[in-house]
Amino acid sequence: MPLQEKQLDPALLDAVDVFGGLDPSGKDEALAAAHWRKLETGERAFEQDQEADAFYVLSAGRLKVTQVTPEGQEIIIRYIGPKEMFGCVAVCGGLTYPGTATAVTDSWALGWTRATIGALAQTYPGIALNAMRTMGGRLQDTQSRLREMQTERVERRIAHGIARLVAQAGRRVEGGILIDFPVSRQDIAELTGTTLHTVSRTLSAWQERGVVELGRQKLTVRDPHALVVIAEDLPLKE
Amino acid sequence: MPLQEKQLDPALLDAVDVFGGLDPSGKDEALAAAHWRKLETGERAFEQDQEADAFYVLSAGRLKVTQVTPEGQEIIIRYIGPKEMFGCVAVCGGLTYPGTATAVTDSWALGWTRATIGALAQTYPGIALNAMRTMGGRLQDTQSRLREMQTERVERRIAHGIARLVAQAGRRVEGGILIDFPVSRQDIAELTGTTLHTVSRTLSAWQERGVVELGRQKLTVRDPHALVVIAEDLPLKE
Repeated sequence: MPLQEKQLDPALLDAVDVFGGLDPSGKDEALAAAHWRKLETGERAFEQDQEADAFYVLSAGRLKVTQVTPEGQEIIIRYIGPKEMFGCVAVCGGLTYPGTATAVTDSWALGWTRATIGALAQTYPGIALNAMRTMGGRLQDTQSRLREMQTERVERRIAHGIARLVAQAGRRVEGGILIDFPVSRQDIAELTGTTLHTVSRTLSAWQERGVVELGRQKLTVRDPHALVVIAEDLPLKE
Repeated sequence: MPLQEKQLDPALLDAVDVFGGLDPSGKDEALAAAHWRKLETGERAFEQDQEADAFYVLSAGRLKVTQVTPEGQEIIIRYIGPKEMFGCVAVCGGLTYPGTATAVTDSWALGWTRATIGALAQTYPGIALNAMRTMGGRLQDTQSRLREMQTERVERRIAHGIARLVAQAGRRVEGGILIDFPVSRQDIAELTGTTLHTVSRTLSAWQERGVVELGRQKLTVRDPHALVVIAEDLPLKE
């Protein structure tokens, strides 16, 4: 399996925030203690309310982390890209996963059991400090989204949501920036707290204005500046 | 100053999550490195976008952490009670405070400069692990509120917001549970992402039904079960 071999390169851990600053022997030890998981598109790494028995770093691919309300409504908490952690609750002392992690493209992840990552963090304090930094960033992201939900009208929220996808997974293509993984209108609705109908209506209007281009599970931002103008509610220049 | 003397008791740190599991010499070292701050009602420990130069544990009193949108709208991120941390961003590597911390009652806090808490966390890995656990809990709280904002109608959100205040600062009094700090209708609006008008209308209706009792900056939950029924959208029994 060439992908697996390639991903087993210890240099992989160099770029992972949680292992930043570890000396080479620490990285070797962390890598030796890890196990690999392949996740086909649609496969779940873990499910909401399941026992939090492992912590992961995504090596390749992309996942979405979702929560389902007691009424069965799904929301997307965040997308996870290469070198990002997921299942952090297993490090933080939580008993169950607060959300479900599903592969949106074929993915590979490095996993550590709860006991293993706990022991590593005791030996290498840097791991806990790094994880904390990442969680601090996520807490602030989530607070920003909460603030947007509380204060912004839906069009601005959709623009902010797409701007975040561009920042996370934008790839420059001819005539714009492509969100480099399958993303549907329903996904955007679950990400921005609105309905499929509102997302479809909004994106169609933006497409007519040349702001975005829509394909099947494909979204290209044609005019990033116009998106920022909408997101930040700036005055339109004529 | 008797309050200050009482609060300087090293046993104070026993019950603070972030120093849990530290040996006595570690606790002495942490306490010796701290400085005290008194915050009068309305005084700010720090402001949004100010350089994050210190981390705090509240010793007595209560603070609210707020964010202001670029348009000037304020939302309440959370309330901080005794033994809770605030200004965590100074530990997590953030450069500026994401919100403003304001005393809602006269308060005392223990502070550590960014450099001091960083050095302590290097010496005592437990500090970083504990802080991470707390931040994991806050991340999940914020995610729950985000999910509520995305999926729940306003009456349920207000009920959830008040239920959280009860859990955090409820004090059993005759005929109900009092939220044990000054909380206004505007505060509840900023906490639940709605308008003062909607909060006033909703709370008045609940008062008529005997669910809550309203005073000036004072809220008592008379019927906690009814509040849960509203929050969880349960069927009403006749």
